[in-house]
Amino acid sequence: MRILGIDPGIAIVGFGFIDKIGSKLVPVQYGSIQTEAHTDPGIRLKDVYDATVQLIEKYKPDAMSIEKLFFNRNVTTAFTVGQARGVMILAGVQAGLPIAEYTPLQVKQAVVGYGNAEKRQVQEMVKILLKLSQIPKPDDVADALAIAICHAHSSALQSRINEVRKR
Amino acid sequence: MRILGIDPGIAIVGFGFIDKIGSKLVPVQYGSIQTEAHTDPGIRLKDVYDATVQLIEKYKPDAMSIEKLFFNRNVTTAFTVGQARGVMILAGVQAGLPIAEYTPLQVKQAVVGYGNAEKRQVQEMVKILLKLSQIPKPDDVADALAIAICHAHSSALQSRINEVRKR
Repeated sequence: MRILGIDPGIAIVGFGFIDKIGSKLVPVQYGSIQTEAHTDPGIRLKDVYDATVQLIEKYKPDAMSIEKLFFNRNVTTAFTVGQARGVMILAGVQAGLPIAEYTPLQVKQAVVGYGNAEKRQVQEMVKILLKLSQIPKPDDVADALAIAICHAHSSALQSRINEVRKR
Repeated sequence: MRILGIDPGIAIVGFGFIDKIGSKLVPVQYGSIQTEAHTDPGIRLKDVYDATVQLIEKYKPDAMSIEKLFFNRNVTTAFTVGQARGVMILAGVQAGLPIAEYTPLQVKQAVVGYGNAEKRQVQEMVKILLKLSQIPKPDDVADALAIAICHAHSSALQSRINEVRKR
């Protein structure tokens, strides 16, 4: 199963594709979509949407995993990130992908094992789990890979629960 | 000039098309896009996007005017409304429309004449300015028409300013 992890934003969107082969996790491609601050907000949204559509067409994931945000001190930022999140989810739904949403707490628990983990610990675990030579930069890219790993672990857990039920 | 006014939301999106012919404002079509609460959030976003695309194709506006939201007590709502706003702005940009954004204060000032106007006063002015027999329901539809009127008045003002500058 190929998972597209997304750390939503408008200036920088982190993305990471990973393959889950049995219990192994293999990085496929990762990076960031960046938009210019002084560009028209509508054009920035279209750029994020177009880039997401292109990534999905090229790497053909089976699922999208995206960070679910509840808290933000700045409500204007919440609206702006929400808008970018909206067009990326739209691109996923249009491609027929199931969309999974995880809170930062769930991502930390799935990747490091506990919800109080620091950002740096999450990034170190991403590096170890995907056998990368270094932590991907900017942070948004490492975060996107963590969100993809979270879905890989959560869906694996879901499969095991289903198996137990079948017995 | 035909203006599409939008009051963004996810359960109910109000929309209103008005024609500005000289100093006259003529209502063309108005109503709401509604999505079911218990539907998958991604599907709801796609429904809002698809409906917006269809409305733009059918009524061919020259501009989109959408409410700009800064404040919301509930940040989760800000994210959700932001997502819906994002896919509607995307539909507008894809159709080549200029997107104008107005705060609730600007809408009140443009429609009623002062920023402290009550919701009911705005709705009454919408009814009077567009020569409607009654206030459109739900509130979101009247609000969408107010947002369209705001753009008609603001762009008229802008034209006058440009004319003055040319002298």
